[in-house]
Amino acid sequence: MRKIVTFGEIMMRLQPTGYKRFFQTDIYESCFGGGEANVAVSLAELGCDAVFFTRLPDNALADACIADLKKRNVDTKYILRGGDRLGLYFCEKGASQRPSAIIYDRKGSAINGIDLSEADVDGLFSEAEWFHFSGITAALSEKVLDALRALLKEAKKRKITVSCDLNYRKKLWNLQKAGEVMSELMEYTDVLISNEEECKDVFGMEARDTDVNKGRISAEGYAELAKAVMKRFKNLKVAAFTLRSSISASINIWAGVLATSDGCFCSKEYTINVIDRVGAGDSFTAGLIYGLSKGKSPLYTVEFATAASCLKHTVEGDFNITSLAEVEALMSGSGNGRVQR
Amino acid sequence: MRKIVTFGEIMMRLQPTGYKRFFQTDIYESCFGGGEANVAVSLAELGCDAVFFTRLPDNALADACIADLKKRNVDTKYILRGGDRLGLYFCEKGASQRPSAIIYDRKGSAINGIDLSEADVDGLFSEAEWFHFSGITAALSEKVLDALRALLKEAKKRKITVSCDLNYRKKLWNLQKAGEVMSELMEYTDVLISNEEECKDVFGMEARDTDVNKGRISAEGYAELAKAVMKRFKNLKVAAFTLRSSISASINIWAGVLATSDGCFCSKEYTINVIDRVGAGDSFTAGLIYGLSKGKSPLYTVEFATAASCLKHTVEGDFNITSLAEVEALMSGSGNGRVQR
Amino acid sequence: MRKIVTFGEIMMRLQPTGYKRFFQTDIYESCFGGGEANVAVSLAELGCDAVFFTRLPDNALADACIADLKKRNVDTKYILRGGDRLGLYFCEKGASQRPSAIIYDRKGSAINGIDLSEADVDGLFSEAEWFHFSGITAALSEKVLDALRALLKEAKKRKITVSCDLNYRKKLWNLQKAGEVMSELMEYTDVLISNEEECKDVFGMEARDTDVNKGRISAEGYAELAKAVMKRFKNLKVAAFTLRSSISASINIWAGVLATSDGCFCSKEYTINVIDRVGAGDSFTAGLIYGLSKGKSPLYTVEFATAASCLKHTVEGDFNITSLAEVEALMSGSGNGRVQR
Amino acid sequence: MRKIVTFGEIMMRLQPTGYKRFFQTDIYESCFGGGEANVAVSLAELGCDAVFFTRLPDNALADACIADLKKRNVDTKYILRGGDRLGLYFCEKGASQRPSAIIYDRKGSAINGIDLSEADVDGLFSEAEWFHFSGITAALSEKVLDALRALLKEAKKRKITVSCDLNYRKKLWNLQKAGEVMSELMEYTDVLISNEEECKDVFGMEARDTDVNKGRISAEGYAELAKAVMKRFKNLKVAAFTLRSSISASINIWAGVLATSDGCFCSKEYTINVIDRVGAGDSFTAGLIYGLSKGKSPLYTVEFATAASCLKHTVEGDFNITSLAEVEALMSGSGNGRVQR
Amino acid sequence: MRKIVTFGEIMMRLQPTGYKRFFQTDIYESCFGGGEANVAVSLAELGCDAVFFTRLPDNALADACIADLKKRNVDTKYILRGGDRLGLYFCEKGASQRPSAIIYDRKGSAINGIDLSEADVDGLFSEAEWFHFSGITAALSEKVLDALRALLKEAKKRKITVSCDLNYRKKLWNLQKAGEVMSELMEYTDVLISNEEECKDVFGMEARDTDVNKGRISAEGYAELAKAVMKRFKNLKVAAFTLRSSISASINIWAGVLATSDGCFCSKEYTINVIDRVGAGDSFTAGLIYGLSKGKSPLYTVEFATAASCLKHTVEGDFNITSLAEVEALMSGSGNGRVQR
Amino acid sequence: MRKIVTFGEIMMRLQPTGYKRFFQTDIYESCFGGGEANVAVSLAELGCDAVFFTRLPDNALADACIADLKKRNVDTKYILRGGDRLGLYFCEKGASQRPSAIIYDRKGSAINGIDLSEADVDGLFSEAEWFHFSGITAALSEKVLDALRALLKEAKKRKITVSCDLNYRKKLWNLQKAGEVMSELMEYTDVLISNEEECKDVFGMEARDTDVNKGRISAEGYAELAKAVMKRFKNLKVAAFTLRSSISASINIWAGVLATSDGCFCSKEYTINVIDRVGAGDSFTAGLIYGLSKGKSPLYTVEFATAASCLKHTVEGDFNITSLAEVEALMSGSGNGRVQR
Repeated sequence: MRKIVTFGEIMMRLQPTGYKRFFQTDIYESCFGGGEANVAVSLAELGCDAVFFTRLPDNALADACIADLKKRNVDTKYILRGGDRLGLYFCEKGASQRPSAIIYDRKGSAINGIDLSEADVDGLFSEAEWFHFSGITAALSEKVLDALRALLKEAKKRKITVSCDLNYRKKLWNLQKAGEVMSELMEYTDVLISNEEECKDVFGMEARDTDVNKGRISAEGYAELAKAVMKRFKNLKVAAFTLRSSISASINIWAGVLATSDGCFCSKEYTINVIDRVGAGDSFTAGLIYGLSKGKSPLYTVEFATAASCLKHTVEGDFNITSLAEVEALMSGSGNGRVQR
Repeated sequence: MRKIVTFGEIMMRLQPTGYKRFFQTDIYESCFGGGEANVAVSLAELGCDAVFFTRLPDNALADACIADLKKRNVDTKYILRGGDRLGLYFCEKGASQRPSAIIYDRKGSAINGIDLSEADVDGLFSEAEWFHFSGITAALSEKVLDALRALLKEAKKRKITVSCDLNYRKKLWNLQKAGEVMSELMEYTDVLISNEEECKDVFGMEARDTDVNKGRISAEGYAELAKAVMKRFKNLKVAAFTLRSSISASINIWAGVLATSDGCFCSKEYTINVIDRVGAGDSFTAGLIYGLSKGKSPLYTVEFATAASCLKHTVEGDFNITSLAEVEALMSGSGNGRVQR
Repeated sequence: MRKIVTFGEIMMRLQPTGYKRFFQTDIYESCFGGGEANVAVSLAELGCDAVFFTRLPDNALADACIADLKKRNVDTKYILRGGDRLGLYFCEKGASQRPSAIIYDRKGSAINGIDLSEADVDGLFSEAEWFHFSGITAALSEKVLDALRALLKEAKKRKITVSCDLNYRKKLWNLQKAGEVMSELMEYTDVLISNEEECKDVFGMEARDTDVNKGRISAEGYAELAKAVMKRFKNLKVAAFTLRSSISASINIWAGVLATSDGCFCSKEYTINVIDRVGAGDSFTAGLIYGLSKGKSPLYTVEFATAASCLKHTVEGDFNITSLAEVEALMSGSGNGRVQR
Repeated sequence: MRKIVTFGEIMMRLQPTGYKRFFQTDIYESCFGGGEANVAVSLAELGCDAVFFTRLPDNALADACIADLKKRNVDTKYILRGGDRLGLYFCEKGASQRPSAIIYDRKGSAINGIDLSEADVDGLFSEAEWFHFSGITAALSEKVLDALRALLKEAKKRKITVSCDLNYRKKLWNLQKAGEVMSELMEYTDVLISNEEECKDVFGMEARDTDVNKGRISAEGYAELAKAVMKRFKNLKVAAFTLRSSISASINIWAGVLATSDGCFCSKEYTINVIDRVGAGDSFTAGLIYGLSKGKSPLYTVEFATAASCLKHTVEGDFNITSLAEVEALMSGSGNGRVQR
Repeated sequence: MRKIVTFGEIMMRLQPTGYKRFFQTDIYESCFGGGEANVAVSLAELGCDAVFFTRLPDNALADACIADLKKRNVDTKYILRGGDRLGLYFCEKGASQRPSAIIYDRKGSAINGIDLSEADVDGLFSEAEWFHFSGITAALSEKVLDALRALLKEAKKRKITVSCDLNYRKKLWNLQKAGEVMSELMEYTDVLISNEEECKDVFGMEARDTDVNKGRISAEGYAELAKAVMKRFKNLKVAAFTLRSSISASINIWAGVLATSDGCFCSKEYTINVIDRVGAGDSFTAGLIYGLSKGKSPLYTVEFATAASCLKHTVEGDFNITSLAEVEALMSGSGNGRVQR
Repeated sequence: MRKIVTFGEIMMRLQPTGYKRFFQTDIYESCFGGGEANVAVSLAELGCDAVFFTRLPDNALADACIADLKKRNVDTKYILRGGDRLGLYFCEKGASQRPSAIIYDRKGSAINGIDLSEADVDGLFSEAEWFHFSGITAALSEKVLDALRALLKEAKKRKITVSCDLNYRKKLWNLQKAGEVMSELMEYTDVLISNEEECKDVFGMEARDTDVNKGRISAEGYAELAKAVMKRFKNLKVAAFTLRSSISASINIWAGVLATSDGCFCSKEYTINVIDRVGAGDSFTAGLIYGLSKGKSPLYTVEFATAASCLKHTVEGDFNITSLAEVEALMSGSGNGRVQR
């Protein structure tokens, strides 16, 4: 089994218990999460050899973060230590018409001062078959972007497959900057993942017959969009989209689309009573990497990735604590939620 | 900005955690609430200058109650202290076919012994533009009713707009007494708010084509009812209704109707996954007072009040901890609950 | 009022708080439960004189279990003490497409070593009118099965009505063994209760036009099945089925069917937002025993049992903490979940 | 085994979690308690046949209270139902130099309207050997005092031993009224229990060489005091005192003195790290009743009562959830708290 | 009553529940705190008109922080809004030989970018009689120090009394820098507060016969030290010290010394079972300001300040939620922690 | 760094929150623990390469257990999977005179069916320098004892140092059997650890001048005892004792003694406010193994082991989550518990 490496920031999440607002309680639940870390954990839960690379400060909170990754079977030995602080984010869980609210507090976090010369890049990539990053990592700071570029070059040199989740965060950069940088990084990217909105935001490329705010999403539109994206970025071999129709913060409809040179494949659609949707996109990405790296068919892959990420919506925290058997049971079954005794 | 004054009882609420029944746990969550206090808090959250008037005992629980109102920016300086006890209510949260159950324990609470001669009525009403009360306050005790009448007279003398939420509580008085007293108090009232049932209970006036228990509610019926109410009570300038179709304790459909001399205006309808519906009517009233006191159009006002109270259903506790921006976002948007990052 | 006796195992249930998975938290909520104990508690809540018979170890956990039964008004004085351990089960609450997962840890529990010669069987059955057991009890161990057979013979000798919930648990025995034993025990059984799947599993008898995994359930099919079952097992006077269409772990459709020599009666159908569905079948059984033992009509009985068990889905824990008044309110009302003040 | 009957009020206690003040949290822990109820529970835990008599309202909170007593094996079948409310008290747990603070909210509670003509007094006292009450009960209301007097007369007629815990509460009555009434009730009393302060408060009789606020307590002084009390109230056969030296809210020194016609007996002294001291006096009383009613020696009795109440300080809530074996282990052992495996 | 103004940083504190270490739980309790904010809250609890000045970001967490200050009656209307983040600190509660551990995460917090030109300094100081700051504020950033110097000059111009808590934090600056800056700021300072170590750290001035790590503290030594400090810094009128002998994280001995031109006054000494000692020094400072600003005698003042801060050790969180009556009760009483009913 | 291997059972611990008794709450806190697992975790926390060997069932609870060990950096790859159940123990935390109570529920747990032929013994011991076991492991079952004997033989063959914690559990076997087996196993043991009682229980060898129940412990007596033990069991090179004087469940005095051929060394003595003392002996053992395996002096080793285990008493759960730096700080410092900022 060869390694899958992901690179990005992991943060501590603090969330008032239940559906309480920030003003309403003094009890917070904490977990750790961040796009690429979530992907690594999902992959490890699925039985893959996942490695997470980042930079974390040298304090007890970061120790606890690393311990949590170890608990999830993620290889943490290449993580750099240094810098001032662990990034944080505060999350208030929404319900029905009240959306979840996130306050990021990641400025000045350790990863922003990363210097790749301190890292064991050779060790990191030895025996690796896959490298994953997201648009968030690209947006964090110039130093992080430099490190990312260097890692991408090294990955391509080693013929490692590269995947990118577009993941646009408007508080980190603007549309123009995002468009320029992400277009550049597409040169290194084999597999692109996006949600129903970001391709328009970042690349100005839009699915027809789709109005997310009105809950109208056309799978065909996304199939065409995938083709167009692959045409524009020549190195892309796979483009995939998660399609979320958000009925409310409590009820979402969820599906996936995957396009390769063989054609475009749509998953079944799930209507979900949401427990925690943060990290759903990352769990889709992990499912996709799982399927592609194991040589599964595109249809299996998109069904697998969508089922895995459907289950993520029912799991608290950023991480998709879900086993291979559970994902396959949902893929093949009816998702009727009968008690497993 | 001129003051909005509300008068009524505020109680401590004690509720078993989660969906536990009274028999099932020894952990209770507590908050404070009561019709007019809820209105004051909602208005303060919307940025208004809200003043809450009541009588509370001189003990540490009542201190905590006042502190909580201060936390919410409500002016508490006219509150009288004295009497034996803080009113309480115990609430068991319902789900699906099991309704929420409320046990009131407000007998002998401090407000029942109120004596207006101890109050600074002049200070209370100076710079005030609005006075709000509900049928609950009128029902509490003779002393409270005397104080209420005196305040209403003073308010009218000062040309302060008066609103009344009909709010019938069968455990406090009977239909006949309620009908007599509330009819009398309509003489002082400019704006009447009722829910889908109370107008029939208290005034014997009913919307046609409506059967609440069957979940059938006709907005047109309520438009006619509003007209009829305003015809009967000549001083009324506005009549408004909240329309709840309770599918179950977990799922409600919610809308509002507002009638003025300009006609009758219906809000859009929201299907809500209920987190906590106690205080929803009060948050509608607050939205209404907000709109009318700011000179907004009737349509804006009813949409605003309905959106505000839709959001209340997603907030734990009696108080609608929701900002102006959040209400306007729901009014203008789709309420699809996408994460706000 | 004559006694209703139930016999089986009661276990301690341990469940991560909220929707947390076993991996995710160190806080567990505990309650007690087990098929026949759940029936006894439900009956006691409905005002019946319920007696629970089992064997429990002589330690503080079993003391707490007995205390909990006493709290619920169940007569515990015939319970034997001895053996090594209290049975346990761990439960992870599912949501949406993620099913609840149960890990039983009942091996070697006290009941498995039961020896009826230590019990006061005469006291247990004196003044009793009903004896209830389930397929789980029959499957536990040879000693338990021996005790069960002896109790059944004694019950028949005393002309006590016997009910049996088929309750097949694949981790306790296999289909063949279950079929043989349960067929034998039908000789003693007057009233059989089964869910939508077990009759097929245990007796190889299936309702037509029904595919549980596809959510297709035909009440007519179950009526025919009931007739066939009663034809095969001549002593049966009543056969009843709970019909669950599991849309997801969060949403279930629930109904009941009851067949007697007078014909077949279907309850209304409830769409339920599930809080906790463990023990729902037991609460149906209790409702059935309540109706039949009180001489209610078959239609009342099946509506009562279905309404009672609908409410169970909204109550945390194994026990259906629901009063007679609450069940009757749901039967006669609309189940719209309006607040009871 | 003959019954021990206690009569008084039971309340719901609400306490902020941990050492939080009323202002600091919205989470409350609840239990039930009240002087004579605590005595009944302690006795039941020790294996006695304890009956608690009171009046409680007919609502779900009082149902939960009765269920809790049943859980503790107390006979609740003579409890009257009616009246408006369950008494409450709010407790803030002190630590070190900060004392615990209690806010009573018992005014207008159900017991205050008690009418003995509704009670089954004959059933209550049949097979009873002991009747216990406290000064709190005497102070509640005229109706309660009337009922108490009637019960005392009936008890004396039946030759039932009567014990009284002096328990002076300054918020319920004043020193003069307390002195008059309690002196009168001493006519019916065989066994008097008091703490280190109350005898002075109520009867104006003081132990020499004792200054509670300075932590100076003389066991000899209390022996003399006991003699003097028994001289003054001729019917008294036993007088007992609990002696608390409160170093701080966290650390107390605790001992007991028991005087009979045979002389005066002092227990060993315990230095206690306090977990919850509410109800300690009641657990001493229960220990005393246990010893005297079982015919134990005075020395055994005072050691037993003191050990039982020492353990109460380590148990959360009003009730002394402690077994006979645990009390005897402390009496005979060293109280060194080694783990029991 | 004239205003007391304090200036500094307020942070959100996050602490694992109970005595759990950072690695051990995902549940955190949160409160707000910071040296000068703690002083303001203590003063408000004592009935003073306290104003807290700082800069906070414009997000919901800072809103919650301000709401918490309002709840405590602190005037927050001069607080500036802007900047990136709210300062945080993580605290792990120690016990016995394991010390509490604090991880500060205050870098880049809003106050560090403060610009006094945006503030209403005139409003802030109008009707003020006292201004308080600490060495932490001086250490935060050059901008904060600039603002502090400007406020101090303005305060002196207005003849406002200035107090300074030396409060050395080695993670914010080094000894040399601290010595230089704090010496300079002594020019503006009337009242200096220090603990048993800081005077040595910052000014190189040490009490004789004192070895903190050995738990040896000499009140006389501190009296001499106070004199020496006042001699060196000519503008000082009062110097006060808190003297902590830390037996362990669970048990501390606590006393205060106050020196004026009239002589040196020592408080009584308290042995404390510690609940939460963070903020104890601030509560001493608040007690000192209370006494001095009310014109109390030096002895009363030091006893008051020490009693107030003794009680702080028993209160969870940074804020000393303790009333005037409670402090005076401890001063005059025995601190024996008897229940207050 | 060479591996330290430990072999034994790890169980899930379930404990009512706070100081609640089993009867009092439905909330349990869970952790994992067991003698040799605790040693492995402590060693890993100190930076050693610790390997834990056991057999666990193939279910999600055991998965969670393994994940927890990974979180603590323990190598779990040699753990066998199979068998029916995870061992459990229930713990009720004592306070003051009330001892902690433990109910073991380990019968039939997976380790009891261990078959070493399924294990990779060669891998387990490769690069190992130390093997540790305890008397509990020897007592579990014949299969476990067989496996233990085989491992001990293999360890000796490989010249691996062997340590044994005597750890007598009376519920697992009797004194005679324990004495025989443990005497036999001393043939393989280089380092023996015992507490103040077990040497007498198992080997009938007692320290003079010591009465544990009276809190009288003589370090000299243990020095002599150590010599005598080493004389009797010729292969022993080191004998160590933990000496606990249990003042109460809340306060313990703790020290250690270590004897080698160089003499006998006593640690300083700690008076501890106990948070959780379960696992204290194991943390002493881990400290001892740390010191001896790193070639530290006997005095350093016993001081280190005692300081480490002193800190364990302040940490919740079985595991001693304490770093090398923290232990050394306590050894060299005063243990005064000052806040670490």
